[in-house]
Amino acid sequence: MKREILEVFDNTYPQREYIIEIVNPEFTSVCPITGLPDFGTITVRYVPDRSCIELKSLKYYYFEFRNAGIFYENITNRILDDLVAVLEPRSLSVKTEWKARGGITETVTVDYTA
Amino acid sequence: MKREILEVFDNTYPQREYIIEIVNPEFTSVCPITGLPDFGTITVRYVPDRSCIELKSLKYYYFEFRNAGIFYENITNRILDDLVAVLEPRSLSVKTEWKARGGITETVTVDYTA
Amino acid sequence: MKREILEVFDNTYPQREYIIEIVNPEFTSVCPITGLPDFGTITVRYVPDRSCIELKSLKYYYFEFRNAGIFYENITNRILDDLVAVLEPRSLSVKTEWKARGGITETVTVDYTA
Amino acid sequence: MKREILEVFDNTYPQREYIIEIVNPEFTSVCPITGLPDFGTITVRYVPDRSCIELKSLKYYYFEFRNAGIFYENITNRILDDLVAVLEPRSLSVKTEWKARGGITETVTVDYTA
Amino acid sequence: MKREILEVFDNTYPQREYIIEIVNPEFTSVCPITGLPDFGTITVRYVPDRSCIELKSLKYYYFEFRNAGIFYENITNRILDDLVAVLEPRSLSVKTEWKARGGITETVTVDYTA
Amino acid sequence: MKREILEVFDNTYPQREYIIEIVNPEFTSVCPITGLPDFGTITVRYVPDRSCIELKSLKYYYFEFRNAGIFYENITNRILDDLVAVLEPRSLSVKTEWKARGGITETVTVDYTA
Amino acid sequence: MKREILEVFDNTYPQREYIIEIVNPEFTSVCPITGLPDFGTITVRYVPDRSCIELKSLKYYYFEFRNAGIFYENITNRILDDLVAVLEPRSLSVKTEWKARGGITETVTVDYTA
Amino acid sequence: MKREILEVFDNTYPQREYIIEIVNPEFTSVCPITGLPDFGTITVRYVPDRSCIELKSLKYYYFEFRNAGIFYENITNRILDDLVAVLEPRSLSVKTEWKARGGITETVTVDYTA
Amino acid sequence: MKREILEVFDNTYPQREYIIEIVNPEFTSVCPITGLPDFGTITVRYVPDRSCIELKSLKYYYFEFRNAGIFYENITNRILDDLVAVLEPRSLSVKTEWKARGGITETVTVDYTA
Amino acid sequence: MKREILEVFDNTYPQREYIIEIVNPEFTSVCPITGLPDFGTITVRYVPDRSCIELKSLKYYYFEFRNAGIFYENITNRILDDLVAVLEPRSLSVKTEWKARGGITETVTVDYTA
Repeated sequence: MKREILEVFDNTYPQREYIIEIVNPEFTSVCPITGLPDFGTITVRYVPDRSCIELKSLKYYYFEFRNAGIFYENITNRILDDLVAVLEPRSLSVKTEWKARGGITETVTVDYTA
Repeated sequence: MKREILEVFDNTYPQREYIIEIVNPEFTSVCPITGLPDFGTITVRYVPDRSCIELKSLKYYYFEFRNAGIFYENITNRILDDLVAVLEPRSLSVKTEWKARGGITETVTVDYTA
Repeated sequence: MKREILEVFDNTYPQREYIIEIVNPEFTSVCPITGLPDFGTITVRYVPDRSCIELKSLKYYYFEFRNAGIFYENITNRILDDLVAVLEPRSLSVKTEWKARGGITETVTVDYTA
Repeated sequence: MKREILEVFDNTYPQREYIIEIVNPEFTSVCPITGLPDFGTITVRYVPDRSCIELKSLKYYYFEFRNAGIFYENITNRILDDLVAVLEPRSLSVKTEWKARGGITETVTVDYTA
Repeated sequence: MKREILEVFDNTYPQREYIIEIVNPEFTSVCPITGLPDFGTITVRYVPDRSCIELKSLKYYYFEFRNAGIFYENITNRILDDLVAVLEPRSLSVKTEWKARGGITETVTVDYTA
Repeated sequence: MKREILEVFDNTYPQREYIIEIVNPEFTSVCPITGLPDFGTITVRYVPDRSCIELKSLKYYYFEFRNAGIFYENITNRILDDLVAVLEPRSLSVKTEWKARGGITETVTVDYTA
Repeated sequence: MKREILEVFDNTYPQREYIIEIVNPEFTSVCPITGLPDFGTITVRYVPDRSCIELKSLKYYYFEFRNAGIFYENITNRILDDLVAVLEPRSLSVKTEWKARGGITETVTVDYTA
Repeated sequence: MKREILEVFDNTYPQREYIIEIVNPEFTSVCPITGLPDFGTITVRYVPDRSCIELKSLKYYYFEFRNAGIFYENITNRILDDLVAVLEPRSLSVKTEWKARGGITETVTVDYTA
Repeated sequence: MKREILEVFDNTYPQREYIIEIVNPEFTSVCPITGLPDFGTITVRYVPDRSCIELKSLKYYYFEFRNAGIFYENITNRILDDLVAVLEPRSLSVKTEWKARGGITETVTVDYTA
Repeated sequence: MKREILEVFDNTYPQREYIIEIVNPEFTSVCPITGLPDFGTITVRYVPDRSCIELKSLKYYYFEFRNAGIFYENITNRILDDLVAVLEPRSLSVKTEWKARGGITETVTVDYTA
């Protein structure tokens, strides 16, 4: 369901290999076990092919996770899958960095190459 | 039109491969959709061949974007094209880092090699 | 309704004037106009009289604002009213610092003295 | 002319003395002598009486200075005059911090008390 | 029991009012409810009268709390009481700053004047 | 004995190579010679195969070292051995960074590849 | 001689008490004993009466010290005297912070009130 | 003996009250108990009367403590006594900030007013 | 002319490849166009062969540029040429980082390998 | 003579390649020319074979340089030689970073591989 929120626009320079990095330090979801909120920073980095992600739609896409209960590892892989499906990029990575819980922080990094 | 503003001077050490990096943290343009201002830092990094960019003319060139409505990705590629045309460098990259909008920041990086 | 979530415990040193400061950098609510999330840091600072605030209940109290649409100024005054009612402190202040929207940040500070 | 852009909303807690601080690190105007852009951070800090400033209108108000040629000292006093006229606050201060020109930075601070 | 661990030495300059500040960023105790460890920084600041605290004995005194289950507020007041009893200072304050639990940090500050 | 405290959960994306990094800045053990406490930050970084480490069990596992007397080098290798045995990861590294003793700090880094 | 370089312009808001602070981190003069260069940051802070200092002329005024051999304390007092003579301000202070020589740094602060 | 190393020069502006601050982050002495080196930062701040301290002589004065075994509190008071005797200032303070030993840092501050 | 100021001393470990890096954040020269001062940091990094540079002579060499009008790119290459001629190193690089002019900073990096 | 101060202990994991890094920011020696103290940070990084360095003996070893007059380059190579002789490591590097003298800092780095 969430994937449909994502919108793209045509890459004006498809013949050139260049990098787009988008950082959202205001991501929040809910721990599936305790029901308490998690906070994190999501960094997406990709080389576009035909399409670029529209930033406002990405913001709304992230907003969909606000009340969803989902593990760190699964959010990270899920965002990668959704963005790869919609953008069909040359390559794309997702890094999620989570605020400390019980004094411990976790970071998850996934890479995709076409 | 803007490209003509850029001036160059002769590279005194054309036989030597060295790197020049120029950072402008005071770039501003206008969002083509909302008409509101965008703010960013532009970093140009190049290996000169016969010519070096004259800094004051680069400042005036950047000033031309002040009231132009143009997307992040297109500004970045446009600046690369203009500088490559004028400098004919051995290599050149442009990185644009944009201040947050809706909590989200974007960075675009383009590389050119002769 | 939310005020009832707050729990207190007896101050073991009621005859002594001392300061307790509690900082929550993971507060989030929703903009009443756009429906988009706001993020902020809430700092409560008080001199206890008979009671101290129980931290876990404060966390759940903050959690109640997660999907509420409410202005910065009103959240700040509301938290002050609720904590003063429950703690009956000698003095108490609430400071809310909000992440940038459109490049602009706001901080609201309210003080109460018995 | 610019003053009319500013909008206010009713202060819900007019009987309470509290502080609102609004920081805009993305202000830009033009030097009246050279015509080149100036960049600065504008901090407004006030104790509201009956009205609070609406943030979006403040953003558009600042935007009006984008292509205006005006000295640091006059911008600072002008913003103070406009905000005092519109808000009729208990007190208000404006601080403008300007990026270096020729290696030198300037900060101007003006205070108003009713 | 713990108080006896603290040792003092004679103040060589008792006629002069001066300040000694001692910071220990490596304090740890145990939460009396969950049994999990807490970590904090303890800052003691005092004007000596006849005695100064011996640093090594203070280190061993802090070490006694390692496996004790005790609330933030009570540790802070307890350390103040112990140091005042042993040092009989002109004035003394204790500040304890605790690492985040559930994203929330607490700081407690107590002052004593003879 | 300690190794049994560690719990794992199934990796939902076992076919994909991705990285999980877990940082605990609140580790403490005891010097086997002086009996005084040591403080450090433990960073675990691994590529999961079939299993991921459960964060809460890792926290309790670290807690087991609280009163154990053990050298820096041995703690680091011991944590690596335990995590490799329980997770059977594709690769895993452990870095331990210790607070200064006598003005000197030590960092130990161990890598494992399947 | 140097004092004549300083230029002023009319204060548009002479009836209002406000503060102007000007920081120059690129000041350099010469040690009168060794002949080697000194580097420092000069901060001027004043409440204008009828006149404000023109920034470009201040830059040229500072430039006059480039090859002058003069002690830290005397430069600071000399700049105060010159600016007070030219501006006739309500109040003015000069702070000079010098880069380390032999590992030691010095800061000199002078205040003037009309 | 050490006091004689200190040299002064005439204050050119004795009629004016101004502040001189001198920071030495490279002070070292020896612990009188363990014989091991201590490291600290010494900050002297004074309002001169007839004399100013000559920086090079102060450096040599500090150098005299290099192999002396002396407690933090006594060094601080000793430096104050020596500088007051030599400078006869209007006021003077000495602050010594010591690097951590066993994880604990100490700062000592002494003030003198004529 | 300037090159003769540079002095070297014999490398005691000529058979071993090791790196020496020397940073001078207090370099200043003059803009050949405006006559106004430029400020920069010069970093030299080299692998010595038979000789090492004597630091005091390097300081005096840099001092020679104080009133010379010369472009960023040429200073950088000139320093490289002089040091290579005097040291005959295995390799050597010069990086010059210049303070902002008109909001824009430049960095120039040149490498030499024997 | 100094080398004998260094003590080692058996590496419990000799079959595994891992890295130990030891940082001492409190090193001091004496300039062989001026007789004035130098201050630096010494970083040793090695892959142990049969032996690990005992930290307390390393501290005493460094202490031996306190009143020795020796150049930066020679200290660095000397420490490398001593540690390699005593540890017989798989590889080892020494980096010395020196505090500024005359505004200029130097860093020396030496590597050894068995």
